[in-house]
Amino acid sequence: MSDSVTFRPIGVVRSPFTREEGTPIQPALASGTEGVIELEPAYAPALADLDGFERIWVLYVLDRAGAYRPQVVPYRDDRLRGLFATRAPCRPNPIGLSSLRLLAVTGATLRVADLDILDGTPVLDIKPYVPRFDAFPAARAGWLDADRRDERHADGRFTHPRSTTTD
Amino acid sequence: MSDSVTFRPIGVVRSPFTREEGTPIQPALASGTEGVIELEPAYAPALADLDGFERIWVLYVLDRAGAYRPQVVPYRDDRLRGLFATRAPCRPNPIGLSSLRLLAVTGATLRVADLDILDGTPVLDIKPYVPRFDAFPAARAGWLDADRRDERHADGRFTHPRSTTTD
Repeated sequence: MSDSVTFRPIGVVRSPFTREEGTPIQPALASGTEGVIELEPAYAPALADLDGFERIWVLYVLDRAGAYRPQVVPYRDDRLRGLFATRAPCRPNPIGLSSLRLLAVTGATLRVADLDILDGTPVLDIKPYVPRFDAFPAARAGWLDADRRDERHADGRFTHPRSTTTD
Repeated sequence: MSDSVTFRPIGVVRSPFTREEGTPIQPALASGTEGVIELEPAYAPALADLDGFERIWVLYVLDRAGAYRPQVVPYRDDRLRGLFATRAPCRPNPIGLSSLRLLAVTGATLRVADLDILDGTPVLDIKPYVPRFDAFPAARAGWLDADRRDERHADGRFTHPRSTTTD
């Protein structure tokens, strides 16, 4: 189909979470955990005006995710679901998306809260969170509306290094 | 900093919009425009259960965006803003993020509404929209709360082919 695309990370996440086990599975379940995003210094001018936003979108590389699986048992369910109907990391293109609370911007460093991202994760993009574009509080959410398990932290089921052949 | 990452698109957007001029600048301003996302047929099993979700996130390559600019005058403002405080496409890693309404899933094809994406755009990922993780209707939105211009459609200011040297 389309040609491959290559991206160069613009920075890195510094987080208290060093392995998938015990890491919150979503920012909304992260209970305020703080960390920082260190962008390359050259990006400081591009962060102007961001401090007016309460939340930001962070797009990042799920660099410790296992190989793509078409169907998975998600953390908050007890049965197999199509991968694209989940936020599991073992995606064809392992790009993570988290809405974090922005606490402060200093130079090219962002202090954030509600962190659910592993330490050392490469960052691809930062976007402002805009309620008019992004907030649909009443949207129907399929199997997650039933939400059979109150799982809030990862247990490592999706961490299978892509470089190994075991699964 | 981190190593480059390479992604292979999983599909393509089919849309009535063939050039930036006149394309809605965000799904929320797209007035219901319909289109389809054609994934490669092999991904059909990974779309199971997605039809229970009212909205989806689409991550895609902004393949006609101009070269990175640290600061831009956004469509809905009249002064220069830091690029990361805008949703303008001329980003270091030109990845687009849109929340679309999901109308139907047939095989590996998704019919969607509120489309703000150009025809032929390569798709990187599909995620379910989950209000509990994604909806923060009261989040403060910096300069966009003031919103000095009611611009709803693109005028081409960000379309400067990356392969040319003019700007």
